[in-house]
Amino acid sequence: MKILVLNSGSSSLKYQLFEMPNEQPICSGLVDRIGLEQSTITHKNFKSGKEEKFLIEAPIPNHESGLLQVTELLKDPEKGSISDNSEIEAIGHRVVHGGEQFASTTLITEEVKAKIKELFALAPLHNPPNYLGITVAERVFPKAKQVAVFDTAFHQTMPPLAYRFALPKSMYTELGIRAYGFHGTSHQYVSKKAISYLNNPKAKIITIHLGNGCSMTAIDSGKSIDTSMGLGPMAGLIMGTRAGDIDPSIIFHLINERGYTAQEVNDILNKKSGLLGLSGFSDMRDVKNAIKEGNQDAALAYELYAYRIQKYLGAYIAVLKGLDAIVFTAGIGENDPDMREAVCRGMEFFGINLDPVLNSQKSQSIREVNFKDSQVKIFVIPTNEELEIGKQAYELVRK
Amino acid sequence: MKILVLNSGSSSLKYQLFEMPNEQPICSGLVDRIGLEQSTITHKNFKSGKEEKFLIEAPIPNHESGLLQVTELLKDPEKGSISDNSEIEAIGHRVVHGGEQFASTTLITEEVKAKIKELFALAPLHNPPNYLGITVAERVFPKAKQVAVFDTAFHQTMPPLAYRFALPKSMYTELGIRAYGFHGTSHQYVSKKAISYLNNPKAKIITIHLGNGCSMTAIDSGKSIDTSMGLGPMAGLIMGTRAGDIDPSIIFHLINERGYTAQEVNDILNKKSGLLGLSGFSDMRDVKNAIKEGNQDAALAYELYAYRIQKYLGAYIAVLKGLDAIVFTAGIGENDPDMREAVCRGMEFFGINLDPVLNSQKSQSIREVNFKDSQVKIFVIPTNEELEIGKQAYELVRK
Repeated sequence: MKILVLNSGSSSLKYQLFEMPNEQPICSGLVDRIGLEQSTITHKNFKSGKEEKFLIEAPIPNHESGLLQVTELLKDPEKGSISDNSEIEAIGHRVVHGGEQFASTTLITEEVKAKIKELFALAPLHNPPNYLGITVAERVFPKAKQVAVFDTAFHQTMPPLAYRFALPKSMYTELGIRAYGFHGTSHQYVSKKAISYLNNPKAKIITIHLGNGCSMTAIDSGKSIDTSMGLGPMAGLIMGTRAGDIDPSIIFHLINERGYTAQEVNDILNKKSGLLGLSGFSDMRDVKNAIKEGNQDAALAYELYAYRIQKYLGAYIAVLKGLDAIVFTAGIGENDPDMREAVCRGMEFFGINLDPVLNSQKSQSIREVNFKDSQVKIFVIPTNEELEIGKQAYELVRK
Repeated sequence: MKILVLNSGSSSLKYQLFEMPNEQPICSGLVDRIGLEQSTITHKNFKSGKEEKFLIEAPIPNHESGLLQVTELLKDPEKGSISDNSEIEAIGHRVVHGGEQFASTTLITEEVKAKIKELFALAPLHNPPNYLGITVAERVFPKAKQVAVFDTAFHQTMPPLAYRFALPKSMYTELGIRAYGFHGTSHQYVSKKAISYLNNPKAKIITIHLGNGCSMTAIDSGKSIDTSMGLGPMAGLIMGTRAGDIDPSIIFHLINERGYTAQEVNDILNKKSGLLGLSGFSDMRDVKNAIKEGNQDAALAYELYAYRIQKYLGAYIAVLKGLDAIVFTAGIGENDPDMREAVCRGMEFFGINLDPVLNSQKSQSIREVNFKDSQVKIFVIPTNEELEIGKQAYELVRK
C-alpha cells in the first residue's frame, strides 16, 4: 500500500511517499515559497536504491497548484513511481494541534475538519495551513483516505498535574488553556524504539528532541506523563530563536516599563531569542564555529542550552521517580556529540555515565553511548516523524 | 546595642526592635492601613519575658506619622523599653531589589539611596515604599546608622548559567533583565542554620521557602547557585495568588486571541492565580479544609503545588550534582506536615526518606524529620528574616 505523508505549512508543503507495510520511502520533497516569487520544488526519488535529486523552478501560486505539480512528479516515469493518483490509498497529514479532542490518529471526516478549525485559536500559525493541506489533498486525491496525525496526541496521556497551570480554573474549562505539548510523533517514535531495544515495556525514559524546535518528554511505560512545551511551542528548552522558559513578569516589565507592545515582545521571544538572542547565531553549527573563534557569547549560549536540558532532566527524574534511559534525537541530538557530552556532564549522581568514545562515533541507526555499567542507558536514535505518520496512517486504514 | 528592623510597604510598616548581640527581640509590631481609614498599630512587647499585645487605633496619614507613633510606643514606660530615640544605634531596612549593584548588606548613603531609586523600574511595587521607609527613618532617627538589607543580595553569587535568560543579549546588558531571585534573607538564614547543624560548610542544600510568596534555592557551600524566582517575584513555585511558572505564550494568547489587556493578564497572574485560581482559596489552611469536604479543585491545587516543588527539587539536584539536605521553612513549610509529606513522596530515588512520625511532631526550633538512614537530611527550620536583617545590620555597624 502506498501512503503519502503531507506536512503543510503557510508557504511550504513537505511530502514523502512510502510503500507499506515494509516502511520503504519511495519519494520525498519540499514545495517551497508557495505564493511567493522564485518558488521551487526539491524532489527526491529513492527507487533505484540510492537518492536521485531534482530541483524544479516553477510558479506555484497556491497549495493546490503545488500538490498538483507534486503528483505530476510522482507520475513522471523518470522522477516518480506511480502511474495514477489512485494508487495512493491514504494520505497522512501532520496536524500540529489536536487539542483535547484528538488523543490518537484519526480518519478525517467533515466533523474532524470542523474540530481542527475550532483549534485555530490555539495554534493560529500552524493549524490553518495544516487544514488547507487537508482540503487540497481531498480535491487532488478524492479516492484516498485522509488521516490526521496530531503533534499533540501522544501527550494526551499526561495527567492533570502535568498539564494544568496554576491559573484561574475557567481558563482551562472555558478557554482550553493547558499544556498540550508538541513533537509528539517524534517522542513517540524514538521512545518506541528505545522500549523495544530495552525489551522493557515499563521503562522510565526521558526523550530529548533537539531540532529547530526543542522539547523533552518524561515517558513512563510508553506513555507521555510530562513534557516541556505547553499551550504552544515556545516554552521549555532554549531553541534556535525561541527563548524557552522565562519569568513571565519580563513580558509585563517590557510592556509597562520599557514601552514595548505585546506583539513586539511576542516576536522577540519567538524569533529573536534563544541561541540567536544570546550569541547572534540561530544555527548550532554557527554557534560552535563561533566558540572555536573565542566568542564568549556563543560559549554562554551553548552552556545555557545544556544547563536548561539538565534542569529538565532532574525535574523529569523526579516526575518519573527513577530513570532507565535517556534518548537524544533530532538534528542536534543526533549529530552533536559535544552537546550530548555537555548535557551528561556531572549527571553521574543520577546514574548517567556517558562513554565519550561511543558518543563520538557516528551511525544512522539506534545506538547506546553509555558506559556498560551506567545505571541509565543513553541512546542516540534518529527520529523519523514522516515514517511514524505514514505508519500510523497505514495502521488506521488497513483495519 | 539596640537595632530597629523596618519593613516598609505601600500602606504598612513592620518593625522589630532587637538587643544585640544576644539577638533578643524587645518589641515588634505592624502599622497598618497608612493613609487609609481605620489605620491601626498592633504593638507587642516582650520585656517581661512573655508577649504583651496592644492595639492602637489612630489616624496615620503617612509613613512618617506612623514611625513617629511607633517611637512613642517604644518610649512608653508600659508598652516600650527605650527612653530616647538615640538609644537605637542602627536601623536595618528590608529593601526588596538590590539589582546587581548590591551583593551584600550596605550602609545607606546618598549614593546608595540614588541606586535604590534607579531600581524602581525593576521593582515598581516594592522599592518605592522601601525607599520611603529609609527617608522617614533618617528624619525620625537622625543619629542612627541606616543599613539596607536586600532580598536579592544572597543570590548575587549565582553564575550566569542560572541568572541569564535566553533573550537578546542587550536585554541583559542594557535593561538589566536577568534572574535576581528573592527571599534571599530567608534562604540565607535557614541555610546557615542547616550548614551549622550538619557541621559541613560544603553541604549541597535545597531550601524551600513556602510562605505567602514561595521560592526554592540551590545552595552549594553556603552560596546560592540557582533560585526559582526571576526578574520579579512571580516565577517559579505556585503561591497563594501567583501562578509561578507558566508557558509565556499563554500571555500572548490571552491578549491576541481572547481580548485581554496586558495589565489584566498581569493582574490575573499575580492576584487571581496560584492556589486561589485553582481552588478558590488563597490560604493553604482553607485549601486543606476544602479538601476534607471533598473539594476536587482544592485537592488538585494541593497536589499541583507539591508537584511543582518536586520538579524544582529534581532540577536543583541536577544543578548541585548531588544533595545533602533539604530545608522546609516559612508558614507552610514549617507548619504543614502534609505538604512536606506530599513533596517527599516518591523522592526515594534521590535518597530522600521522610520519617512520618518525626514529620508530624511540632517544634519551634530546627529539627530533622528524615529516617536515620536517609541519605539526604530533611530539616524543618523556622525562618526569621527580621532577626537576620537585625544581625546583618549589627555586624555591619559594630565594625
